[in-house]
Amino acid sequence: MEIEQYMQALGGQARAASRRLSRASTADKDQALMTIAQEIRTQAKVLKSENTLDLANGKEKGLDAALLDRLELTDSRIEAMAEGLEQIANLPDPIGEISNMRYLPSGIQLGQMRVPLGVIGIIYESRPNVTADAAGLCLKSGNATILRGGSEAIHSNQAIAQCIQSGLKQTDLPVEAIQVVETTDRAAVGELITMSDYVDVIVPRGGKSLIERISKDARVPVIKHLDGICHVYIDAKADLAMAEEIAFNAKCHRYGVCNAMETLLVDSCVAGDILPRLASRYQAESVELRGCERTQAILTGISTATDEDWDTEYLAPILSIRIVDGVDQAMDHIHQHSSAHTETIVTEDQAVARRFLAEVDSSSVMVNASTRFADGFEYGLGAEIGISTDKLHARGPVGLDGLTSQKWIVLGTGQVRT
Amino acid sequence: MEIEQYMQALGGQARAASRRLSRASTADKDQALMTIAQEIRTQAKVLKSENTLDLANGKEKGLDAALLDRLELTDSRIEAMAEGLEQIANLPDPIGEISNMRYLPSGIQLGQMRVPLGVIGIIYESRPNVTADAAGLCLKSGNATILRGGSEAIHSNQAIAQCIQSGLKQTDLPVEAIQVVETTDRAAVGELITMSDYVDVIVPRGGKSLIERISKDARVPVIKHLDGICHVYIDAKADLAMAEEIAFNAKCHRYGVCNAMETLLVDSCVAGDILPRLASRYQAESVELRGCERTQAILTGISTATDEDWDTEYLAPILSIRIVDGVDQAMDHIHQHSSAHTETIVTEDQAVARRFLAEVDSSSVMVNASTRFADGFEYGLGAEIGISTDKLHARGPVGLDGLTSQKWIVLGTGQVRT
Repeated sequence: MEIEQYMQALGGQARAASRRLSRASTADKDQALMTIAQEIRTQAKVLKSENTLDLANGKEKGLDAALLDRLELTDSRIEAMAEGLEQIANLPDPIGEISNMRYLPSGIQLGQMRVPLGVIGIIYESRPNVTADAAGLCLKSGNATILRGGSEAIHSNQAIAQCIQSGLKQTDLPVEAIQVVETTDRAAVGELITMSDYVDVIVPRGGKSLIERISKDARVPVIKHLDGICHVYIDAKADLAMAEEIAFNAKCHRYGVCNAMETLLVDSCVAGDILPRLASRYQAESVELRGCERTQAILTGISTATDEDWDTEYLAPILSIRIVDGVDQAMDHIHQHSSAHTETIVTEDQAVARRFLAEVDSSSVMVNASTRFADGFEYGLGAEIGISTDKLHARGPVGLDGLTSQKWIVLGTGQVRT
Repeated sequence: MEIEQYMQALGGQARAASRRLSRASTADKDQALMTIAQEIRTQAKVLKSENTLDLANGKEKGLDAALLDRLELTDSRIEAMAEGLEQIANLPDPIGEISNMRYLPSGIQLGQMRVPLGVIGIIYESRPNVTADAAGLCLKSGNATILRGGSEAIHSNQAIAQCIQSGLKQTDLPVEAIQVVETTDRAAVGELITMSDYVDVIVPRGGKSLIERISKDARVPVIKHLDGICHVYIDAKADLAMAEEIAFNAKCHRYGVCNAMETLLVDSCVAGDILPRLASRYQAESVELRGCERTQAILTGISTATDEDWDTEYLAPILSIRIVDGVDQAMDHIHQHSSAHTETIVTEDQAVARRFLAEVDSSSVMVNASTRFADGFEYGLGAEIGISTDKLHARGPVGLDGLTSQKWIVLGTGQVRT
């Protein structure tokens, strides 16, 4: 009950702040971002000493090395947080943008104006730099934010929150524009994702289990990204040299990222030619290969890809390979197993490329390019709050625009309906 | 359990049909719409005789006159259904539209392609014509539909469904593209709004209680419209002749519609001048006026507007009036009491108009025009599945575009990440 009251109070303050923020000038928002960046630099020592507490607690609790690494605030990570805020300040302000103004037969002028969503709840796990990063994106897009980080990063998050608060205090913006939940009680999350009077959208950032849990219980819309089970399909008419580079890059450029390829589909006409070449490159990088029966006939000695493999996001140097007969079978496989994140086809056949582009129902669909391009920075958005695998509202990489809404505006000179 | 299996089967069929529909040609979709329209005309007698059964049951159950009127299928309503489908056939096809193609520094070409949402569940009440109307919009936008009408219209809906089925059978499109739920069991609705594997979005059309119930229980995104508590604010710098026409039109053009004005806000500087003129016009139309204390001082004899009035969508010849001191107080009232549907300001002051446009957080915000323009047809959308008071995805009047999503497409010539 105490938690509920606490969260409701944060919500009411966020709602009030969001009205102020929605009409804040670009100059005021940018100045606030620059001031917070400067506070983060000034307080680097404090941030690191608070972070040390989290790291010590983490070690005591037996957190694994990867988690401890994500939790750590180094000098370069602190500088990157500050620079990230400055970069956000330098992006164009999406708010107030008016588009599609046109005259209608009744004489009214109709257009759309981009406006903030209102209050955004961000729930994340161990990486404390998300606090500054997400807060910055929300502030620039005129939204109030309530941030709830992982309990393992509570000291670091509170220290970053202090920087944000003292930065905001030096501006005309309300300090409640960005609030960090101070309790590690899990009930706070339950309250945050259900108080629809105060919160307009939830953005969870973290592992699949966190996101599934939040999506299941939320009564507020969620912009989410579950899985990245991305496919590369090498068509019968592919340029095989190009296919080799794309399939190699999509798997081996980085393993632990959502836009890495997890399954390679190869047309049976070219499998005998391309697979041995690719396999030797993968094996040189110690990528474990798992194949369907037909793949195993070409790449002898690799293990069997089970039904589970086709549905697994490895995020690791493992690749499942399936030989298919043509683009229809490839698309059937994708529709059945893809997480609707990113798929690419390698082909010189324009008709086949056109079908793949139109019919594959993923947030990014590519022709002759590596899946690794599915990213807000590569797409020129200037920032990214996440990659949405939902179809409504924001789809694919979500930048500042994804944190906004478009309302209709009508300008008249006294028009009435007749 | 039987209902669950039945709905799951409909869902699976809809999902399969949606893949076929998503790649259907514009010509095939338009031909299907024209064929269904023709079937509806041919079967007019059957439609009316089935409708007679619903009307008789309705009378027996004691449905009120308004409900019975909505339920009735007359010759002109049947013709309007057929014409509506033909109009949808004549609209441009939104699917496949590619926008914002641009080259990025990496050499890839990036753009967005408009694609169907997938499977849309429509839940509606007594008006059987919604069956054809909603099905037509979904078909044109490449979506499969599952329609669940009110139990009081079951015979009429099934008869319309027959027309749709026999129309579809004459085309290359799958007959499962449009399915009408054949049971009146309420459990079917519960299943429809929670089977997120098969349904991408729910569009409820009906009264507030239906929509609240569905929003509360849905596990699938809902495009919804709860209330239309619309405001007209007459500013101190209004052209009073214009203000009189707009405030009269916004209330009296039609009473039972969501974009009618329910509350009039008047700046205290002009209230003494405009309110008596407006009151005599409202009273000539038998509109009941309810006012704040200051309004009552000018319009003596009208009743008191209570706190409840400010939050009520009358949908009737009743108007609540409040005198405010300036645009800030007007906007405070709107933020507190509006349903975020449509608000208009009457003013000649550009600075005030600009603030109202930017700061009022409703789906349509207008200057010097009647709220009655907030409508898909008036906005030139060519069709309307509803008016959304949500901020995410579709906001305000929802036409064909609101039933689509935009995915990213990337065209390359072998680009990889370095």
